[in-house]
Amino acid sequence: MKIAIVYHSGYGHTAEQAKAVARGAESVAGAEVVVISLSHGDVPWDALESADAIIFGSPTYMGCISAPFKKFMDDSSKPWFEQKWKDKLAAGFTNSSGQSGDKLNTLQTLAIFAAQHSMIWVSLGLMPGNNSSKGSVEDLNRLGSFLGAMAQSNTDQGSENAPIPSDLKTAEHLGKRVATLAARFRHP
Amino acid sequence: MKIAIVYHSGYGHTAEQAKAVARGAESVAGAEVVVISLSHGDVPWDALESADAIIFGSPTYMGCISAPFKKFMDDSSKPWFEQKWKDKLAAGFTNSSGQSGDKLNTLQTLAIFAAQHSMIWVSLGLMPGNNSSKGSVEDLNRLGSFLGAMAQSNTDQGSENAPIPSDLKTAEHLGKRVATLAARFRHP
Amino acid sequence: MKIAIVYHSGYGHTAEQAKAVARGAESVAGAEVVVISLSHGDVPWDALESADAIIFGSPTYMGCISAPFKKFMDDSSKPWFEQKWKDKLAAGFTNSSGQSGDKLNTLQTLAIFAAQHSMIWVSLGLMPGNNSSKGSVEDLNRLGSFLGAMAQSNTDQGSENAPIPSDLKTAEHLGKRVATLAARFRHP
Amino acid sequence: MKIAIVYHSGYGHTAEQAKAVARGAESVAGAEVVVISLSHGDVPWDALESADAIIFGSPTYMGCISAPFKKFMDDSSKPWFEQKWKDKLAAGFTNSSGQSGDKLNTLQTLAIFAAQHSMIWVSLGLMPGNNSSKGSVEDLNRLGSFLGAMAQSNTDQGSENAPIPSDLKTAEHLGKRVATLAARFRHP
Repeated sequence: MKIAIVYHSGYGHTAEQAKAVARGAESVAGAEVVVISLSHGDVPWDALESADAIIFGSPTYMGCISAPFKKFMDDSSKPWFEQKWKDKLAAGFTNSSGQSGDKLNTLQTLAIFAAQHSMIWVSLGLMPGNNSSKGSVEDLNRLGSFLGAMAQSNTDQGSENAPIPSDLKTAEHLGKRVATLAARFRHP
Repeated sequence: MKIAIVYHSGYGHTAEQAKAVARGAESVAGAEVVVISLSHGDVPWDALESADAIIFGSPTYMGCISAPFKKFMDDSSKPWFEQKWKDKLAAGFTNSSGQSGDKLNTLQTLAIFAAQHSMIWVSLGLMPGNNSSKGSVEDLNRLGSFLGAMAQSNTDQGSENAPIPSDLKTAEHLGKRVATLAARFRHP
Repeated sequence: MKIAIVYHSGYGHTAEQAKAVARGAESVAGAEVVVISLSHGDVPWDALESADAIIFGSPTYMGCISAPFKKFMDDSSKPWFEQKWKDKLAAGFTNSSGQSGDKLNTLQTLAIFAAQHSMIWVSLGLMPGNNSSKGSVEDLNRLGSFLGAMAQSNTDQGSENAPIPSDLKTAEHLGKRVATLAARFRHP
Repeated sequence: MKIAIVYHSGYGHTAEQAKAVARGAESVAGAEVVVISLSHGDVPWDALESADAIIFGSPTYMGCISAPFKKFMDDSSKPWFEQKWKDKLAAGFTNSSGQSGDKLNTLQTLAIFAAQHSMIWVSLGLMPGNNSSKGSVEDLNRLGSFLGAMAQSNTDQGSENAPIPSDLKTAEHLGKRVATLAARFRHP
């Protein structure tokens, strides 16, 4: 079972999130995980085509996915035309500096993109954290997301300090969840 | 394998779409299909809880799902709290009089709702129709939707004439697709 | 110059937000503010028709506006058909327990609804707060919203304690902003 | 009064839509219109800063605005940081081959982007066309859009034949509407 994670990161924060998603996916027996950064050379389209699941990650810039991630989306029109990713599982994650910001629009856009590829979208699968007086920013899913994994990084902190551990654990959860479902969904 | 279709229809057009989705689902071997209209009595929550997949349908009114469908969504906070629908497949369909209108916002809202329930969203799985000079309104997926099935009904036509056959075939396709994937996704 | 605020509140938190929006609007010279709760009797459609600006408020329930607010939206199809609200200013606010949650989908749906009425949508007009190591939950716009005003209320706190003051000040800002722009936008 | 139209066009169809928007804006007395193609050299940020209204246009590719348009959005973080576009009017248009497709997600993303810049979003201001048995593709707003202007171009037709005249008239309407409202909204 192969899980591909394809992401763009402008300043390293989304890259940390991607690594956490990978750790989660790798924790599932039988999962082979490939991590693709859009900042390093050509997109290995074959790796995406042979994957059982593809997890998309992008920072939220100016209200939506970043331009380099959008370029990847546009370039995928070739596999789209042949529906090479049909029936694969898909999921998404995003990071920005706002607590909410417009992160949801990024996840919606990723889900719509996956639908164009006739994929099947896996939700985060966690109840919301940090939503009661007993909650804290250390809660899993502290931002209360459902469509995918959200993370928040302060504008004045580098990727060694942000996103915070709870956001990385949330990302890890998503990776594990997708790999678990991919195992179940493979043809017997 | 059980497929539940839960819908609201104000004037009968979305009900026709729901019937078409049901026909599609029933065409899959082993599928047991239950169709739930939100206009007739209490919601049979048990039927939803025991389903492998739930397909949501609503007209698009004033830019989003109809108020009766929203009431169903709000009432589902009880099964939500216990995450009774977790890992079930989900999908959606909608009808309105505009060719595009704001139907996409209805489908986005249904996908987000399904994500709150930790469900897995099945896309329509069709290439767009009626998008070249050789196309026509008789094409499957003539409105070019991806996240779910769209239908269009003229404001001055009753449900005996609208949605048109291509939209009903598109809805049928969605029902068949969800049932096929639900069969594959069941625990072995 | 008349500003109408129309809202639904299930447990009182969104009502506090509505009061704060009203305080902000009332602080502008010449503003006459009417606050309409959807929990108390019939909608005074005339008050909406005579307003220069209408500000919409709803909690986010199960991923979108609440069912009672959706009923108001659906019922507005009569003034919609005659485009009675055309060229009025519009804006929106929402409250839920998640830090982000799906609040953005509520604001998007309100903006689309306003567009159906051919209205003009006023954004929040604040830079994001609480997005650096120097920030705190006491910052204005602490959730980092742009399309409208967001508030967050803990699930175990009543409306006497939630939303917190910064969220109410953010709502107040929105009311003041809309009234200020409405004054500028009136026919000379 | 200055109206700026900034757009990307991959194959010329969205460029035709941009020209139509410009024609509409120019028809308003006192309007000075500048049209900026993102395919030709550097973005003239000063022209945007001095405009009373900015109208954004992008094709819908793979579910959202095109990558070159997204690059423009990301590059606008500098004027964003100084809120140079605050209180300007904004509007949007998009073209794709599907009748509905995911054009609404493009318009939503443009509206969210404008909100980040604290702009004021002008809706299309037209009732839906081609939504009854008496309607046709020649109707104004034949796709039934509200948040902005939509156009549809067949995949096998060049920009000399697509978008069709009704879509261009719809775009023209948007340009005229924005210029008319900008005149009204200027400081007295």
